[in-house]
Amino acid sequence: MVGSEALAALRAELGEPVLLTDPDSTARFAHDDAEWAPCGKPLAVVRARSTADVAAAVRICAEHGVPVVPRGAGTGLSGGANAVDGCVVISLEGMDEILEINPREQLAVVQPGVVNDHLRAACRERGAWYPPDPASSPWSTIGGNVATNAGGVCCVKYGVTRDYVLGVEAVVGSGEVVRLGRRTAKGVAGYDLCGLFVGSEGTLGVVTEVTVKLLPGLRAPERTVVGYFDSLTDAGAAVANVAAAGVVPSALELLDQHCLRAVDDWKNMGLSAEADVLLLGRSDSPGQAGEQEVDALLECFERAGATWSARSTDEQEADALFAARRLAYPALERLGPVLTEDVCVPRAEVPEMLGRIEAAAQRHDTQIANIAHAGDGNLHPLIITPPGDDAARERAQAAFDDIVADAIALGGTVTGEHGVGLLKRKGLHAELSPTVVGMHHALKEALDPAGIFNPGKVFGTP
Amino acid sequence: MVGSEALAALRAELGEPVLLTDPDSTARFAHDDAEWAPCGKPLAVVRARSTADVAAAVRICAEHGVPVVPRGAGTGLSGGANAVDGCVVISLEGMDEILEINPREQLAVVQPGVVNDHLRAACRERGAWYPPDPASSPWSTIGGNVATNAGGVCCVKYGVTRDYVLGVEAVVGSGEVVRLGRRTAKGVAGYDLCGLFVGSEGTLGVVTEVTVKLLPGLRAPERTVVGYFDSLTDAGAAVANVAAAGVVPSALELLDQHCLRAVDDWKNMGLSAEADVLLLGRSDSPGQAGEQEVDALLECFERAGATWSARSTDEQEADALFAARRLAYPALERLGPVLTEDVCVPRAEVPEMLGRIEAAAQRHDTQIANIAHAGDGNLHPLIITPPGDDAARERAQAAFDDIVADAIALGGTVTGEHGVGLLKRKGLHAELSPTVVGMHHALKEALDPAGIFNPGKVFGTP
Repeated sequence: MVGSEALAALRAELGEPVLLTDPDSTARFAHDDAEWAPCGKPLAVVRARSTADVAAAVRICAEHGVPVVPRGAGTGLSGGANAVDGCVVISLEGMDEILEINPREQLAVVQPGVVNDHLRAACRERGAWYPPDPASSPWSTIGGNVATNAGGVCCVKYGVTRDYVLGVEAVVGSGEVVRLGRRTAKGVAGYDLCGLFVGSEGTLGVVTEVTVKLLPGLRAPERTVVGYFDSLTDAGAAVANVAAAGVVPSALELLDQHCLRAVDDWKNMGLSAEADVLLLGRSDSPGQAGEQEVDALLECFERAGATWSARSTDEQEADALFAARRLAYPALERLGPVLTEDVCVPRAEVPEMLGRIEAAAQRHDTQIANIAHAGDGNLHPLIITPPGDDAARERAQAAFDDIVADAIALGGTVTGEHGVGLLKRKGLHAELSPTVVGMHHALKEALDPAGIFNPGKVFGTP
Repeated sequence: MVGSEALAALRAELGEPVLLTDPDSTARFAHDDAEWAPCGKPLAVVRARSTADVAAAVRICAEHGVPVVPRGAGTGLSGGANAVDGCVVISLEGMDEILEINPREQLAVVQPGVVNDHLRAACRERGAWYPPDPASSPWSTIGGNVATNAGGVCCVKYGVTRDYVLGVEAVVGSGEVVRLGRRTAKGVAGYDLCGLFVGSEGTLGVVTEVTVKLLPGLRAPERTVVGYFDSLTDAGAAVANVAAAGVVPSALELLDQHCLRAVDDWKNMGLSAEADVLLLGRSDSPGQAGEQEVDALLECFERAGATWSARSTDEQEADALFAARRLAYPALERLGPVLTEDVCVPRAEVPEMLGRIEAAAQRHDTQIANIAHAGDGNLHPLIITPPGDDAARERAQAAFDDIVADAIALGGTVTGEHGVGLLKRKGLHAELSPTVVGMHHALKEALDPAGIFNPGKVFGTP
């Protein structure tokens, strides 16, 4: 009833090509890439073309008390963009224009549907660099990156999405359009509402434009260091060595045997024959400083017991290894539903945490592959179950819960860069005190009095 | 009545050496360094020794509806720490312990009363670097830096306080102690409440501990470039040239004739005879990259019409010039009450904004000295009036208002790094839309339902 009135209003305001209501058409917008997260049936999908479309949809939803679920490319790994029953999904995919690239002011202004790699390529053409590079960068959108405060490979040196968001335009409340943040290098006029929206996973409003900070100049060429290890804990020790040595690489990625084999099976790269665990380090410091960093990385790898380590002299080979890292997730997805972890622990605890992940896999008789932004302490154990095996799913869930508990016990967090969405809500409640969760509820009610924006996500009851 | 009950409770809980009530003793805690900002008479001052002291004071104040005004060293320039009538000032000066310096995890944990320079020196001893360096660094506290999201000289390359705050402990609500943020490199579990507290100027709670990010290693030595200019707009053009060239200096500071003369009159440095406007640039990039940046800075200075420019070959001389920059504010304060501006404009607008500041000085027949973190577009026109000259004060206020309006008109902000406090409230209401101001009120009411934390500051009615 509420639904049909809201639908009529949406139809009158936005018209058919923008509004999808046929279940076959809306299904594709109901789920992100978190295969394990539940999802509901949307009432409709609004394929927004403009801020005005978003504002109209939000106004109508607020009037009728209909939930609003914003969505980019749907590459999220926590279910944050999953539909709830009877909601209106607002797809921002079509709002994909780069509005401004301004190297002098070191900023770009984009619509939320711009794909990360497209922005980075456009900046490169103008002699500037947008660093955040999630593994999903060929597909994920800046709006989605903002919603989850996405990280990536170079974040170990250059920081995460929040460090690059200067301002947003957003539709809030019952359809008001606001500008938060700034275009200047600094600014402290009022609360950092822009920063608050980054990582809020669509629970406070719908971001319709993003102003990001750029670094001037092209990115410096990188040197690559490769290390092979016999065990996860040896590789973890190498990571801890790097932190203790005070070296800040421009990448420090880990792939284990499961990942290497999955990539080999798919792309025939011949990686798994060579190493049990692969560490990929990079330095982009120019000149002598870069040489010293490479030497230091090699020394850290060797001291941890690398079976082989070397500076890559072949740029194509180095790029292929990083391409393998990027392909690891889709390669593993081919084997069965993947339950993705995203814990982040203090750097010194990386070996201990990797050991606990192995123990959890054994304890629960489940297969866990490890990819990691190891230099950040941000680990992605990926729990793989054979399709349709319910007992395996239960064991996987038990391993997942253990890993979350271990990360918290080691002073870590349940999510480093993927967001809480639906899958990490239990973890969030374990990580944050009830008073802090209460602050979340109070803040959400203050900024979303109609309670329409992505309800139940992040800090809702699991 | 309310006051006397609250006082009795505070006395019973905290005792005399912690609690000051004698007006002669409390007066020193009633005002920060913003000479033009009004201040009230505190009911009492709590010189907190611990988080427990702060929690007890907040609990009692919440019970009795007494305002709480947190305060560090009182070096603020916007009146943010000024007492309101009948409030309890909580002084954090005595909580000045450095609790942990951990180079491996690249973090330090400090009490809020730790002086910025003390932390930086202690980190240096441990081979790490805490970058934010406000001009007040010899005196201002980390707690105060967090409250205002303080900037500084190296922020043009290294960012501001918010970029280095990983976590805070704070006393909120009616005395609950919470931990916000994290100790890990990354983390997205819930809203960025830690970032929200940074720059909130004590209006959401009292910060009792701060976890800051450190950069590993000692800071690289800097090369210094000096430029003399005949006019502010020429110097401003040099700044715009630097931005257009894509050079990121580690400092780019501007001092005009008024500042140079005031420092000379005080410290006899002989600067004002040499230049009308001085630009000080620095590069800390190692090796060849640093040499190239120095060359590029010199080229930018010369192209803008520098009457003299050179790379400083004498490190002591270079340090003396930066010391002069640091002394400019106290030197000018010796001449009369200083009304401090803190506008920040897009880099390309620096010449235009400097021209408008000169025009405002002429139009209102008032003396305006200029210091600037010019590379950020963050300008500090300082309006100086003869003591006791009421007509001059009125003209100064008119110039202040014009400069704020000009900054907004050029796409800038009314405060780059000092905070809104009391002095910039009118500017904040001009800069932010009514809807955004409404979001501030809603958020404040949600997190401070008793309405006790620093009431009337930042977005209150001027």
